[in-house]
Formats: sequence, C-alpha cells, structure tokens
Amino acid sequence: MSEYRQDKATREWILIATERARRPHDFRVKRSVGDLTLPEESCAFCPGNEAMTPPEFMAYRRGGEANGPDWWIRVVPNKYPALTTQGSPDRWMQERFFRKMDGVGRHEVIIDGPRHDCALPLMDDWHAEELLWVYRERFLVLQQDARIKLIIIFKNHGSAAGSSVQHSHSQIIATSVVPLNIRNKLYEAARYYDEHGRCVYCDMVREELQDGKRIVMENEAFVVYHPFASRVPFETWIVPKAHEACFALISPHDSKAFAHTLKAAWLRLHLALNDPDLNYVLHTRRSIHEVSESYHWHLQIMPRFTTAAGFELGSGIYINTALPEETAAFLRE
Amino acid sequence: MSEYRQDKATREWILIATERARRPHDFRVKRSVGDLTLPEESCAFCPGNEAMTPPEFMAYRRGGEANGPDWWIRVVPNKYPALTTQGSPDRWMQERFFRKMDGVGRHEVIIDGPRHDCALPLMDDWHAEELLWVYRERFLVLQQDARIKLIIIFKNHGSAAGSSVQHSHSQIIATSVVPLNIRNKLYEAARYYDEHGRCVYCDMVREELQDGKRIVMENEAFVVYHPFASRVPFETWIVPKAHEACFALISPHDSKAFAHTLKAAWLRLHLALNDPDLNYVLHTRRSIHEVSESYHWHLQIMPRFTTAAGFELGSGIYINTALPEETAAFLRE
Repeated sequence: MSEYRQDKATREWILIATERARRPHDFRVKRSVGDLTLPEESCAFCPGNEAMTPPEFMAYRRGGEANGPDWWIRVVPNKYPALTTQGSPDRWMQERFFRKMDGVGRHEVIIDGPRHDCALPLMDDWHAEELLWVYRERFLVLQQDARIKLIIIFKNHGSAAGSSVQHSHSQIIATSVVPLNIRNKLYEAARYYDEHGRCVYCDMVREELQDGKRIVMENEAFVVYHPFASRVPFETWIVPKAHEACFALISPHDSKAFAHTLKAAWLRLHLALNDPDLNYVLHTRRSIHEVSESYHWHLQIMPRFTTAAGFELGSGIYINTALPEETAAFLRE
Repeated sequence: MSEYRQDKATREWILIATERARRPHDFRVKRSVGDLTLPEESCAFCPGNEAMTPPEFMAYRRGGEANGPDWWIRVVPNKYPALTTQGSPDRWMQERFFRKMDGVGRHEVIIDGPRHDCALPLMDDWHAEELLWVYRERFLVLQQDARIKLIIIFKNHGSAAGSSVQHSHSQIIATSVVPLNIRNKLYEAARYYDEHGRCVYCDMVREELQDGKRIVMENEAFVVYHPFASRVPFETWIVPKAHEACFALISPHDSKAFAHTLKAAWLRLHLALNDPDLNYVLHTRRSIHEVSESYHWHLQIMPRFTTAAGFELGSGIYINTALPEETAAFLRE
C-alpha cells in the first residue's frame, strides 16, 4: 500500500507509491533513445484490448457488455495506482520520529476515445463534449468519499509532459491531503476576498478583458488568456465568466461550451506550435457542497518546452522566457 | 530588463526574463533529436575561448592575465542572465491591476574546471575543495547587496536536469524576492523550534543516525542520507552535524570535508546508476549575519529519472516511486 509521508521540516506531504515502486537497480540509465510509440495491437487502451486494463468503472458504449469493445469513452482504474481506496486517512501513524499515513485516494484513467492517436484538438465536437461530461461524472462520484480532500483532473500529452502512453487519455487523482500549493491558493483567494469583497479570479477576468492584450479568445461563457504572471511560455488559462467555485456545478450547456473552448484553445497551440507536449490541470473546490465566494474554478494548460532545473527545484520560482502579451498576440493571429 | 510579476491570486512571484526571451515562433517544436555535445573548439567554457563569455568576476589561475587561458576555476556573469544588477527592488510598480518589479538580482556561472567533460565525481580532491571554496567566496560577495533576499547555488548536470551546456559548471542565482517554498521552509523550521526548542534539522540528523536505515554515509562533520519523505528516487541530503544556519560560515577544514562528502555522495550515484542526470541545490540563510537557532544549511541532490506531469504541476505533490530505505541500502553496498 502506498503511503503519504510528511516532511518534518516543511510539513509538506509526499506520496510514496510502493505499488509502482521500481527496484533500485532499475533506475540505471540506459543510454539509448526509446520510442514510446506502441503498435495498436499491444496498446491497452485500444478497442479489443479491454482485458489489458482493470475492469472499467464506466463507459459510453453502443450496447454490448461492460469491458467489451464497443465504447467511445471508457474509465478504468489506473493499473499501477499512486493511491488506493483501502486504508485510513488517520494522520497519527508514526514511524519513530516521522509521521505517515496510508496512501488513501483514487487514481483513475479516462480513455478519451477508441482511436489510438486522436487528441482533443482533432476530436469531433460531440466527442469532446462527452469527454468533459465524463470528467464531471467521475468528479461527482469521487467527491462522495469523505476521505478525499483534493480532486485533480489532468492530462499529460507527450513524453515531455510525463506521459508514457501514447493513446490519448486523461487522469484523475484524488488525495486525502491538501498540499501547500493548493492550501496557499485557497488561502490567498480568501484573503483577497477579505480585503476587497470580490473574487480575485472574477477581478482578473474583468481586468484581462478590459486590457485585452493577453486575451487569446473569448465566448459567451469563457475567457482564454495567458496570465500576467505566466509560469511557462504559452501558459493558457480557461476561466468561466460566471463565478463558481466547483467545476461540477457546470450546466450541460456550459459544459459543451467548455469542451468547445478547451478544444479551440488547444487547437491554436497545436497549429501554432506543431503539437507541443503539454499538461492541463483543472483547479476546483473538492465538492459541489463547498460553496465559496472567494474561489473560482479554472483550467490551466502548461506547454512543456523547458525542463525545470536546479533553481526552479530549489526555489519554486519559475523562469519564463516569453512575454504573455506576445504569446497571446501570436495565438490570436 | 527582466521583471518579477506577482500572481495576484497566490501572491507568488514569477520572473519574466526578457533578456533571454525567445520570439513566440521560436517555440515551434522541431521533430528531431538534438545532440548537446559540442566540440571543444566551440565550447565557451573551454580554455582558449574565454572571450566567448562576459569578463570574469574571479578566477583561480596560474599567473597570466584576467580572462586569459591559464585558470582552473573561473566565475563569469551568465551571458543570458535571468536577473541583472540594475534596477530597484521597489514593489510598488503597477501595471494596471497587477504588481511587478524590476528583475533585480545576480546570475553567475562557475566554470568548475578547464576540462570539457569532468564532473565533480571524477575531479581531483584538491580541485573539488577549491570549487566549494569558490561557492563560499561568491556567496560572501553577493550577500553584501541588500536588495538580495535569497541566494541559490546549484548545479544542473545533464539534459534531463535542464542543462544546455555539457562543460561542467555551477550556477548562482540571487533574487530580490523570497518565494513561497522558501518562506514556508523557514517558517516551518521556526515553528518547530517554537514548539520543541530544538532545530528540526538537528533532530532529523540525530534520528537518521540512530535509525540508520536511510544513511548512505557519514563522517566526522557530515551525514549523507535519503530523507524519510524523499520527493524523487535517490534524493540525497548532505547535512552538517554542527548546527549552522548559513553555509558561508563554514571553516576551511569543514569546507574541505564538505567537498569530499559531496564528491563521494555523487560518486556513489554516478557508479551505481551510470551517471544519472541530476540537480543539486544548496539551501542556506541568505547571509552570515542571519543567525538562526531554527534553520540549518544543507545540500539536496535530486536525480532526474522522471518528468513532473500534470498531477505534480497541479498539486505540488511529488510521486516518488522508490523507498528511501531501499535506495540508501543500495548505495551503501
């Protein structure tokens, strides 16, 4: 079973995932260039190979049986989960001087579609809409587990983004701890609200729309922009115009608009930058019952052009080599 | 001139380095495998090519003139600095809604030695000793700039560690802001001290020595171990046994011991793992005048076997796939 471990000095929680542990000698560097591309026959996410994944949680399928081939979106447990449902979120376990706890949580994989190589920018609109609706469906299930304190829905696209499977997929990790970064994010939003009586994200969206120079696109329900303090080149935020703390309260109508917006935003990156490796992460309160006037859900896209080096690791300060005003203008064209 | 930008929502400071800015279209992905290995003739850090770097701050040399070839360690400004000495640390500059400030700071490169391909594990002992002494010398100079709030001395070894230059070198970045991670690290150390009346790092070292299973090696002045809550496989800490908040107060005798310890610790990784890419970062209070009973300087080595993916980026929680007890045992053998 995995465990969380608390750094005694910073009180940050680290996850030790023994389920996916490699042996020490397995870390020896192989001096050869690997190819991540698998033939479809051996891809666990391709239709016909359903038996290569653990049994599915849910699927959208054209009839047929569970774990059969006739699906267009499929959700399965991660075969090598970082977190598992067993265990207690009790934080009083000690290992001598140190604190630890069970690796309680969830780790699910959403297979975006049956086609081996069809990422969101190239998907049909209806398919993208249903994929985003699946995000919401799984969120609604996971939020019911009271041990869960954080739900992160994300995508790794390309090897520079940490993906080891080419077949387009999304992931959900739900943890029973709230890390410093997230705690700080919630705290600072609350603090801003305390000072100004307004949501900081609402204020940022208003400012970006008024100023305009970092806007990539806009529609009725969403704004897409490169934030003032972008951490990486082409960092892209998608923020709903209406104030809402929890993503899963989205209406079917707005969820479709969200799908079209995400697809269009990524497509601009895809076309302008020749399909860059990227991650996206959905930031949201952890349940539909966490009403908040200070927090506001949003999605961050982080293209992966550079590797974090010693300074970034040591300080947590990102060094960005591009101006968001210029990158946004480039994508608007 | 570079600028810091404050994320209004989290109040984290981001550095926008326009000096090293690339144009938006330069980020287009080139689908070819690059080779970082340069012939020595075109390496700016090799002897004979001194004119390819900005004029040196200092060097250890066998006679001859400044910026001539006869040196064995050489310190130069980074040619494309993330930070520059001009500007004001005034934080009241506004760009409409957002706060920003000048990119005030320092960014220096320490060329570890004249040989193109000779990293620390393969250096002579005397050379390693002098390299660490240069770290201290530069620290003592940089700490005198009152605008400097953080000094990070670090190394990027290999392309997975963010290095773009093969010739062995170290870097120093000094910033005029203190990021959340560091602030939190200092705060939590102070909080621990407030609760226990002891330094948390002293307590950790004592615990690790008593327990023993995560110890890699030990000598009179230093302990080398894989921390309980290791963030990455083979994360290695070198901690002085004597309590000291600032690295630069080290004695010449202990500095030599530090050099031998760092060299030996890295050599174990080098031999056991076939020269893995890695970063190391020196964590210290920012000046010798910052006496502190709660903080304790140390060096962290982070091998780079994996790529941070969406979950790590979004949550700040690292997923480590190895047990430090096992990796430490592996290196002890």
